[in-house]
Amino acid sequence: MSFKPTDYLPYDFANRRHIGPSPAEMSEMLKVVGAGSLEDLIDDTLPKGIRMKGGLDFGKAKSEREVLEHLRKVASKNKVLTSLIGQGYHGTVTPPAIQRNILENPAWYTAYTPYQPEISQGRLEALLNFQTMVCDLTGLEVANASLLDEATACAEAMTMAQRVSKSKAVKFFVDRDCHPQNIAVMKTRAAPLGIEVIVGDPAKMGASEVFGAIFQYPGTYGHVRDFTDSIAALHEHKGIAIVSADPLSLTLLKEPGAMGADIAVGSTQRFGVPEGYGGPHAAYMACKDAYKRAMPGRIVGVSIDAHGNRAYRLSLQTREQHIRREKATSNVCTAQALLAVMASMYAVFHGPEGLKAIAQRIHRKTVRLARGLEEAGFKVDPQAFFDTITVDVGPLQAAVMKSAVDEGINLRRVGEFRVGISLDERTQPAIIEAIWRAFGIVKKDSDFAPEYRVPEEMLRTSDYLTHPIFHMNRAETEMMRYMRRLADRDLALDRAMIPLGSCTMKLNSAAEMMPVSWREFSLVHPYAPADQALGYKEMIDDLSAKLCDITGYDAISMQPNSGAQGEYAGLLTIAAYHEAQGQGHRKICLIPMSAHGTNPASAQMVGWKVVVVKSAANGDIDLDDFRAKAEAAGDDLAACMITYPSTHGVFEETVTEVTRITHEFGGQVYIDGANMNAMVGLSRPGDLGGDVSHLNLHKTFCIPHGGGGPGMGPIGVKSHLTPHLPGHPNEGGAAVSAAPYGSPSLLPISWSYCLMMGGEGLTQATRVAILNANYIAKRLEGAFDVLYKGPSGRVAHECIIDVRLYDESAGVTVDDIAKRLIDCGFHAPTMSWPVAGTLMVEPTESETKAELDRFCDAMLAIRQEIAAIEKGEMPRENNPLKNAPHTVEDLVVEWGDRPYSREQGCFPPGAFRVDKYWPPVNRVDNVHGDRNLICTCPPLEAYAEAAE
Amino acid sequence: MSFKPTDYLPYDFANRRHIGPSPAEMSEMLKVVGAGSLEDLIDDTLPKGIRMKGGLDFGKAKSEREVLEHLRKVASKNKVLTSLIGQGYHGTVTPPAIQRNILENPAWYTAYTPYQPEISQGRLEALLNFQTMVCDLTGLEVANASLLDEATACAEAMTMAQRVSKSKAVKFFVDRDCHPQNIAVMKTRAAPLGIEVIVGDPAKMGASEVFGAIFQYPGTYGHVRDFTDSIAALHEHKGIAIVSADPLSLTLLKEPGAMGADIAVGSTQRFGVPEGYGGPHAAYMACKDAYKRAMPGRIVGVSIDAHGNRAYRLSLQTREQHIRREKATSNVCTAQALLAVMASMYAVFHGPEGLKAIAQRIHRKTVRLARGLEEAGFKVDPQAFFDTITVDVGPLQAAVMKSAVDEGINLRRVGEFRVGISLDERTQPAIIEAIWRAFGIVKKDSDFAPEYRVPEEMLRTSDYLTHPIFHMNRAETEMMRYMRRLADRDLALDRAMIPLGSCTMKLNSAAEMMPVSWREFSLVHPYAPADQALGYKEMIDDLSAKLCDITGYDAISMQPNSGAQGEYAGLLTIAAYHEAQGQGHRKICLIPMSAHGTNPASAQMVGWKVVVVKSAANGDIDLDDFRAKAEAAGDDLAACMITYPSTHGVFEETVTEVTRITHEFGGQVYIDGANMNAMVGLSRPGDLGGDVSHLNLHKTFCIPHGGGGPGMGPIGVKSHLTPHLPGHPNEGGAAVSAAPYGSPSLLPISWSYCLMMGGEGLTQATRVAILNANYIAKRLEGAFDVLYKGPSGRVAHECIIDVRLYDESAGVTVDDIAKRLIDCGFHAPTMSWPVAGTLMVEPTESETKAELDRFCDAMLAIRQEIAAIEKGEMPRENNPLKNAPHTVEDLVVEWGDRPYSREQGCFPPGAFRVDKYWPPVNRVDNVHGDRNLICTCPPLEAYAEAAE
Repeated sequence: MSFKPTDYLPYDFANRRHIGPSPAEMSEMLKVVGAGSLEDLIDDTLPKGIRMKGGLDFGKAKSEREVLEHLRKVASKNKVLTSLIGQGYHGTVTPPAIQRNILENPAWYTAYTPYQPEISQGRLEALLNFQTMVCDLTGLEVANASLLDEATACAEAMTMAQRVSKSKAVKFFVDRDCHPQNIAVMKTRAAPLGIEVIVGDPAKMGASEVFGAIFQYPGTYGHVRDFTDSIAALHEHKGIAIVSADPLSLTLLKEPGAMGADIAVGSTQRFGVPEGYGGPHAAYMACKDAYKRAMPGRIVGVSIDAHGNRAYRLSLQTREQHIRREKATSNVCTAQALLAVMASMYAVFHGPEGLKAIAQRIHRKTVRLARGLEEAGFKVDPQAFFDTITVDVGPLQAAVMKSAVDEGINLRRVGEFRVGISLDERTQPAIIEAIWRAFGIVKKDSDFAPEYRVPEEMLRTSDYLTHPIFHMNRAETEMMRYMRRLADRDLALDRAMIPLGSCTMKLNSAAEMMPVSWREFSLVHPYAPADQALGYKEMIDDLSAKLCDITGYDAISMQPNSGAQGEYAGLLTIAAYHEAQGQGHRKICLIPMSAHGTNPASAQMVGWKVVVVKSAANGDIDLDDFRAKAEAAGDDLAACMITYPSTHGVFEETVTEVTRITHEFGGQVYIDGANMNAMVGLSRPGDLGGDVSHLNLHKTFCIPHGGGGPGMGPIGVKSHLTPHLPGHPNEGGAAVSAAPYGSPSLLPISWSYCLMMGGEGLTQATRVAILNANYIAKRLEGAFDVLYKGPSGRVAHECIIDVRLYDESAGVTVDDIAKRLIDCGFHAPTMSWPVAGTLMVEPTESETKAELDRFCDAMLAIRQEIAAIEKGEMPRENNPLKNAPHTVEDLVVEWGDRPYSREQGCFPPGAFRVDKYWPPVNRVDNVHGDRNLICTCPPLEAYAEAAE
Repeated sequence: MSFKPTDYLPYDFANRRHIGPSPAEMSEMLKVVGAGSLEDLIDDTLPKGIRMKGGLDFGKAKSEREVLEHLRKVASKNKVLTSLIGQGYHGTVTPPAIQRNILENPAWYTAYTPYQPEISQGRLEALLNFQTMVCDLTGLEVANASLLDEATACAEAMTMAQRVSKSKAVKFFVDRDCHPQNIAVMKTRAAPLGIEVIVGDPAKMGASEVFGAIFQYPGTYGHVRDFTDSIAALHEHKGIAIVSADPLSLTLLKEPGAMGADIAVGSTQRFGVPEGYGGPHAAYMACKDAYKRAMPGRIVGVSIDAHGNRAYRLSLQTREQHIRREKATSNVCTAQALLAVMASMYAVFHGPEGLKAIAQRIHRKTVRLARGLEEAGFKVDPQAFFDTITVDVGPLQAAVMKSAVDEGINLRRVGEFRVGISLDERTQPAIIEAIWRAFGIVKKDSDFAPEYRVPEEMLRTSDYLTHPIFHMNRAETEMMRYMRRLADRDLALDRAMIPLGSCTMKLNSAAEMMPVSWREFSLVHPYAPADQALGYKEMIDDLSAKLCDITGYDAISMQPNSGAQGEYAGLLTIAAYHEAQGQGHRKICLIPMSAHGTNPASAQMVGWKVVVVKSAANGDIDLDDFRAKAEAAGDDLAACMITYPSTHGVFEETVTEVTRITHEFGGQVYIDGANMNAMVGLSRPGDLGGDVSHLNLHKTFCIPHGGGGPGMGPIGVKSHLTPHLPGHPNEGGAAVSAAPYGSPSLLPISWSYCLMMGGEGLTQATRVAILNANYIAKRLEGAFDVLYKGPSGRVAHECIIDVRLYDESAGVTVDDIAKRLIDCGFHAPTMSWPVAGTLMVEPTESETKAELDRFCDAMLAIRQEIAAIEKGEMPRENNPLKNAPHTVEDLVVEWGDRPYSREQGCFPPGAFRVDKYWPPVNRVDNVHGDRNLICTCPPLEAYAEAAE
């Protein structure tokens, strides 16, 4: 040994930390897949014609520490003032116990959407708490969990109203006191669907002319109005009434249900979720029971497991994912689950008394503030308010706003002569005094006695949050243990690979996550003055530039805060472009059969007609059919939507032909970015002929899945589309989200990832993602059929495993295999999509060879269990697959007549011995759950009963 | 319902978050214990004469958010410069994955010391990794895990050398190149033991005159010397050779074992543990196998469980806790376990190649730095170095140091004419250039080619970290899962009460923990200029003032970084006082039989003679015996050491008589602060006649236990003792720790706690701690005997449950009950202390009524299981108690002939159903482990074998 330098780079995040297989492991794996080198494998897999020229060059990759130091500098350019702008975003106190144990805990943030209920009971319970909270506060019967933001929730409610209303009207009434961003997003959504939005004073609403109406409560300028009469008028004419309500205000105020509302929506941001310059936060939607099947979003419900024990699950699942394709009415998927969990925990932590006390304090402070202003001679409006007032300042608006900024406070500009002020949980007496000073008033907050400005008849009289879960005893010890118990019930990336095809569940590194909690990112109001968000601007600009390099596009909009919303925004952009070209009649959209369900749903939402293109026998787009349908569409062709590499996991060589044809007939090309993890650094949608793509930053760019959201779905476009990108929601633009940059507080994650990986690191990640998928395909060869390989016999970054024949041969379904994988300690692959009865596996680059082998061992052992059934050695109805997943209850209560040992049942190959994950419930009965839909916390007796 | 304000204070941390029982629960509990009010209960429990006058007044309690804002302001007064001072403290990069998943994860930081191996396998494995790392790096055979800091490790090694040396010499040689703080602490320790410390040049050491010697490697000024010859000379004269070595340097340099060293010590701080202004970090000690039984500190070893499966445990446990009392040779308990875990994970994460690469880079940078200085004409010393050099700057020392500070860099003052520079993992080229600028040199780092300055013969030739655990594949995904798996094997406060008598396992709230990670606290060197640590000063001053108020003392020293070290420092202070009074002959220390084992051990260490005082039948100190022994000691009486309330959990009314007698005979009174959680706000040791006390900030003041450390054991003294408190370790003072304020980066926890609780909140916590203990005592009444109540039938904050009779009646030992409690989901109470065969239960104020009830239900059910054995319904050798704890292996592999059901075995009352904690191993065989001591990671084959 001597001073020969080691070739190990401890700082090199890209090559040694993010990427799973070590160089030595990669060599072994390349041998297994039969490739001479990683480059050879990539050459085999990606057709030459689609490879990008040159490589990504982002300069030298930075170490974790360098990135964190860089981000600290950039973050310091954001100024954290006290924003009292309101307008749907409020200061809130995130309880540190929730921050540490949920937001910063990989057990929560790395989880996938809870489609597999047996390994998701923890977050399903938290989301059921959320629904219960929403139902109670709004006074309605059914709630979902959850939606992207209040503005999209309003838009979803509007289209839902149209669906359920028996009125023939095409007009929709919007309270002029709705938040401007809500109005903007509803208008955006309404236009392509032919809904005519009328913004006006509810007192003058023509109830007979509309299919529905929405009211803001309290109004954006603070008014607390009773909409009971307007709602009754609507109902008289079969209209649907929607109330968009601040949930905190509902702890004091008469609830929408008591006014007769059919639907309520709103944001739960102020329940402990930082403003984050606009997001992410969870919006809510609740409705009357009669309308529940028309409600978009995910609903957690109560069912039973195979032993009859209570178990939670996502109900009415057919409403999602398989989003009814061209008959879809919404494309909502990502649901801000992590933020809904945080909001629900905030309610659990504070309970009804705590929430009410918080609301009362805010109100009393607002009254004090108003009195101080009134005593000084200012005209304050309204008289009845909760937390928001406006003050007439005449021509001094700018002066007062600036004076407030000098005091460290942002006020809201209202019209030309008024300023708005919304107080919140963080408001302290010193802030009130500082506001007064901004108005030239010297007063002491303590000089004012408590007082109230809500008319008696507007006070809430009903109970809420009566369930015992909201009556825990408020000790942090108990809360900490509750969060731990729920976390332990779930299986997330922090324990095992989640091999979900098309979902790219990769490492969300600790370093990337850290800046999300920094106050310079989390405590900024989305409508704060631009000069207070220069750090955000620098980050967004640089990340956008990098994403342009990666995709081959010319501009990026960060506004869409989910993948599906990105699709929608992209199609809107195309539609606006056609319109501007005098081609507004183009409304046909070609979509291959294998497309993500959200694709036709999004096309539907922009008012287009979906024409489905066939697949060829090898899974590729049938080029002849494509050409024929494009030709048939002719001058009406708006766009095609394709996924690349295809949803079958193949780099189709014909992609450039598809884009050429589309352009030939005047259409635009939308390339779905769901599979970008197979392309970064190797191929660019912009080079393939794409005009627009969305990127799932929560797939490819390391934003964690959060158990079903947050997401970020920015879109990249070619320059001719740039003028038609979504506009600022608060400045009259055609917006798709409430906040101009979607959920920007997540962007430090993707930006850090790019900076730490560098161009070469990102490219290497892509190569290894492809290697990992090919390694699995190879190891399973012989035991299972892998569908859809490229011409050279390679798959891209995922592979489809065909298990259809076992249904007949052994009575084993794809579901049985998925549940048996839980016994092996794995989340199931994507089931029955894009091909029914198959499993699609995507390992990502972050998984090590050991973990891939553990998965392959598990799959091969399952194949042998199937063979045992096929050979008649094991009965078709009583075997480890049918009884999966196995629980401790099986071991303790009854093993029964199972023709296999406890050992075989519980410790199949793949399962850890000491560290085995035990699902808390046996297989969950989906039919029972949908038939007996309960979607709020069941009463305790029901639990006791179930336990008996 | 109306606007009647709720009386709920959501911000009020003290009354609703830290304290477990809700007001409603407290009412119920008071009924059970038969007290009219909480105040009544306290009046019953605390004799009037010992109550403090007035209450604690710290002003209005702050909310969590207010405290965090306040701490942010205070923290900003610390200036974070790049400290290249070295001297045993170095910049390091804490991998974010380790920071998030260990340091900031309650599963790790709330755990108790792993005395109960069945529920501690995770951290035992991590600590075994630590030991393996230390053995490998030092080239020695046995290592412990771990010690308080390098300086105390040196002192421990010195006294160990004296114990094991066959030499009759009383002198101990200390390399003059040892770090000054190491020399200071060794001198402090040596004096009372009659060891004569000779500091000098190893080349001139008189090996025949000493029983041992210690060498610093590399030396404090950078020298890399081979001590082989000196060590051989020592061995010739039966001397023991100790090397204090920087573990990172050992990845490049010849290891101490290869030089023949008998013992190696050092600090693992630079293995990813932030400097934290001095601590906490883990020190290590390793030795030859022959000396292992003389080694202080905890040693993790490998044993087997009841099924013969491999299991880890603390070995040779009799060396601790029951610390051989007056025959003790060390009082080490708290062992920085959490920091040792972090350091071990750093090694696991980087592996040998990574560590070597880090060391090589640091070395190459240091060579570049030196060359730049040399080329500019500076004289650089030494020629052979690792990471540290000194530069002769003549009379310009102050100018260069200031110039460096202006560049944002702290250098080390060395003598009058030199400055020292130590580079580290954080050093970047820009830093080297900035150092040059401080010397007036303009050069570019990149102009220098890599070069080395270690002589070939000093290079390491042996392998290290060859075990597979250090060869994980370096992916964060794998590392994250490894940390999660280990965490899940353990049962900590984040899942259940840890009802340990005398250990006060209370809530460590998330808000309190947050500032510990802030760079303003974590990135400060302990010897940074005082004007860079003004935030620390403000915090330490304010916390000290509060602790003075709480204890009734006049001054606080924050230096001791464990409870035992606090005892030692307190006794030293008394000894120094006696000396100053011309009473140095006073060397008798009265200690009651029921004292903590560390009390006599500490007295032993200051060279005193321990005289044991009897207990009366009721457990109190036998006052007659005390008086008699004080009288007998007479003019030789140095001190008495008592615990209040007593270790029997009783507020003895006679305490003031005990202190009076002690003073009467010229002794000083040491009141052990272990039970301060029963006193804060109600009674003050200073008022009872105490002259000095230590406080366990990691018990009473919310610093988490960390699975066996960190700790903080500051001492409070009356004013006459103030001049004799420990001095600055780096300024020639009589120091007990390496750093002037012990482990100051933990102080934000205790300070936040005081600020959030306020005086009344702290007092309420004490009251509720007493209520909780009395509630348990009451609920168990009838089923179990509670030993030692006060005259009114009350216990203090803990109670002793007598289970001795069941040994005869049912063959059930205290161990069986402790293990059965694991089945119920609990950590065992303190076993067999202070009374053999009993359980001491301390619930603390943080536990809710529900959790207390769960515990009582479990205990009552256990009593019934014992009754079944007594009645002969269950055999004595095959029953749920004897077979406890039950594991999944029992369920799966063999239930065998057990005369009870799986249900009864695994789900006794108390156990959670869905969320049950399953221990990873069955009962661990202690005898096997001590007989076959293996204390490094066993080879993989051994694992495979065990699994078979």
